Amino acid sequence: MKILCTKSDLQKGVSIVAKAVPSKTTMPILECILIDASSDRIKLTANDMELGIQTEVAGSIQENGMIAINAKLFSEIVRKLPDSDVVIETNDKYQTFITCDKAKFDIVGKSATEFSFLPTIEQESSIEVSQFALKEVIRQTIFSISESESQKLMSGELFEIADNVLRVVSLDGHRISIRKIELKDESEDVKLIVPGKTLSEVSKILSGDLENMVKISYTKNHIVFEFDSTVVVSRLMEGEYFKIDQMLSNDYETKVRVNKKELLNAIDRATLFVKEGDKKPIIINITNESMDLQIKSQMGSMDESIAIEKEGKDLLIGFNPRFLIDALRVIDDELVTLYLMNAKAPCFIKDENESYIYLILPVNFNAVA
Amino acid sequence: MKILCTKSDLQKGVSIVAKAVPSKTTMPILECILIDASSDRIKLTANDMELGIQTEVAGSIQENGMIAINAKLFSEIVRKLPDSDVVIETNDKYQTFITCDKAKFDIVGKSATEFSFLPTIEQESSIEVSQFALKEVIRQTIFSISESESQKLMSGELFEIADNVLRVVSLDGHRISIRKIELKDESEDVKLIVPGKTLSEVSKILSGDLENMVKISYTKNHIVFEFDSTVVVSRLMEGEYFKIDQMLSNDYETKVRVNKKELLNAIDRATLFVKEGDKKPIIINITNESMDLQIKSQMGSMDESIAIEKEGKDLLIGFNPRFLIDALRVIDDELVTLYLMNAKAPCFIKDENESYIYLILPVNFNAVA
Repeated sequence: MKILCTKSDLQKGVSIVAKAVPSKTTMPILECILIDASSDRIKLTANDMELGIQTEVAGSIQENGMIAINAKLFSEIVRKLPDSDVVIETNDKYQTFITCDKAKFDIVGKSATEFSFLPTIEQESSIEVSQFALKEVIRQTIFSISESESQKLMSGELFEIADNVLRVVSLDGHRISIRKIELKDESEDVKLIVPGKTLSEVSKILSGDLENMVKISYTKNHIVFEFDSTVVVSRLMEGEYFKIDQMLSNDYETKVRVNKKELLNAIDRATLFVKEGDKKPIIINITNESMDLQIKSQMGSMDESIAIEKEGKDLLIGFNPRFLIDALRVIDDELVTLYLMNAKAPCFIKDENESYIYLILPVNFNAVA
Repeated sequence: MKILCTKSDLQKGVSIVAKAVPSKTTMPILECILIDASSDRIKLTANDMELGIQTEVAGSIQENGMIAINAKLFSEIVRKLPDSDVVIETNDKYQTFITCDKAKFDIVGKSATEFSFLPTIEQESSIEVSQFALKEVIRQTIFSISESESQKLMSGELFEIADNVLRVVSLDGHRISIRKIELKDESEDVKLIVPGKTLSEVSKILSGDLENMVKISYTKNHIVFEFDSTVVVSRLMEGEYFKIDQMLSNDYETKVRVNKKELLNAIDRATLFVKEGDKKPIIINITNESMDLQIKSQMGSMDESIAIEKEGKDLLIGFNPRFLIDALRVIDDELVTLYLMNAKAPCFIKDENESYIYLILPVNFNAVA
């Protein structure tokens, strides 16, 4: 194999596929990036068997071939190359020569025959969303997945298509995050459970562009994301996702409209008194026109009052401040609306057309105090 | 005590003195910042008994007094305050109320009588240098101190004043770094050994301004840095510093002039093949007009050739690449000159008027290979 490309194109490609290289594995071949120049295009691939990523690198092929190279070493070499043209050449002993200006590297690769290629997926159904929209819905839901061993499905997110709306759901037993996107084209109804890791890696590669689209196609066992010159293939999770609709309610006794940044900053200040692993709740006293936040621990206490617009009853309620912060941080609106029922019922933070819904369970602060 | 100041002034002051708060200590009072409003100025102080820092904060004193507050908690509170005026008020039970807009914090401080105030230093002798110059000489020498347990003095730097020149020296047994600054005023000859920690903390606080000066005064046991509204007091190290002058030589057999950035980048690339703790040398082959760098390990090898201007003999010599990188990284010149004698004698990197000298011992690469 002999290929030529620029350092910057190569570096971009390597950084994309490196996201599918497992950090720990007992199989050395999984730690490799495959350079595939067997056809008329240069493709890089990495595959940890759950998640596989392939991307194309612009450049010219002077001799067809393939080689698998340790991803960590290859990434570091590429990163440190001068900003110039790179030639990668292999011999039949898998010796790999990387030349760039006057720098010459000589490393040993592995035979491509050992490599686990991406599975060939029969793409039956698919939807299209913008890179921006997909990146946003992942950011706005990924924080409430859970790595619980007993509830494997909590480490994934539900992608549910119904009535040409994509609904993305994550939950961890204390809260639920929901985001909806209207789809442009007619789509069949379907429910997929996508591993959280796949989504967080995909979101790192997405440019976040409004113009550029992502094609998301799926079979019974796999989901495929295609965008720019990159293909991400991931296994789906098996099982039935949690029934959340019965937990969602539009009833409320108290409705609060508040400046998001003020509320977020006040809760953030309160967390000063909460040590890692500590379950100190923040106690919120909602009265007419103001919301008093209070937190107390052995380190000290904080009180803060925030102006609000209120409808309905007064309410005294406690929350894990972390859960409120996580949800408020990803909402882009300047003003947010909280819907509350009583001190034991969940709080809903949502916009009018429910493009986002954050359900957060309260904490029984009498018991904790 | 009751004081009023802005959040930003307070934050700046806290971040300066926090550098003298020890990260680990069994004495809770040392973890505190003292707020001293007993006179007509607000002063913050922290002191770990080796290093003490005091700085003034602009603001008004409404009631004189002092309080010691846990530095970590206080820093975090101040950092998260809204960008507004802050009132700090204490009562006779050391309860401390920090109020900023609608946020109110209530924490418990400690009596100032427990606090270790800065020692009063009789300032006999002093010199003045710009903040820029001091920050630079620290940056350009601090990397070659050593935390060797057996050679305590290697963790400090020599500040030697002779003939109105300040010479700053650090060494670790494999290399010596020397920087010289001409002093404007007449100064008495003196040798001081300043703890490395003091210098690195001072350099973080220095603005790096060319206009603003630092007054450095000293007694037998202490050194004092005064700049802006800050005073840093540190113990000096006791003992006699290593005799380095007999190791410095102006003789050479080979003189090489090379582009610094090219050399640095090439050596940096070579370190890809050197794992942490590994002692692989970089082998440099100096011939007419070019310098070939080579490194080999079980991971692979790198070769690179760099254009040079050479005087004198050809030479094949090995170095720990880390030591070359450390020195080259802090030199600001575009071109550097290396003076070499033979494969077993130190290499000198220095400018013509010896404002900097970096001595690096070579590695016997036959033995290692």
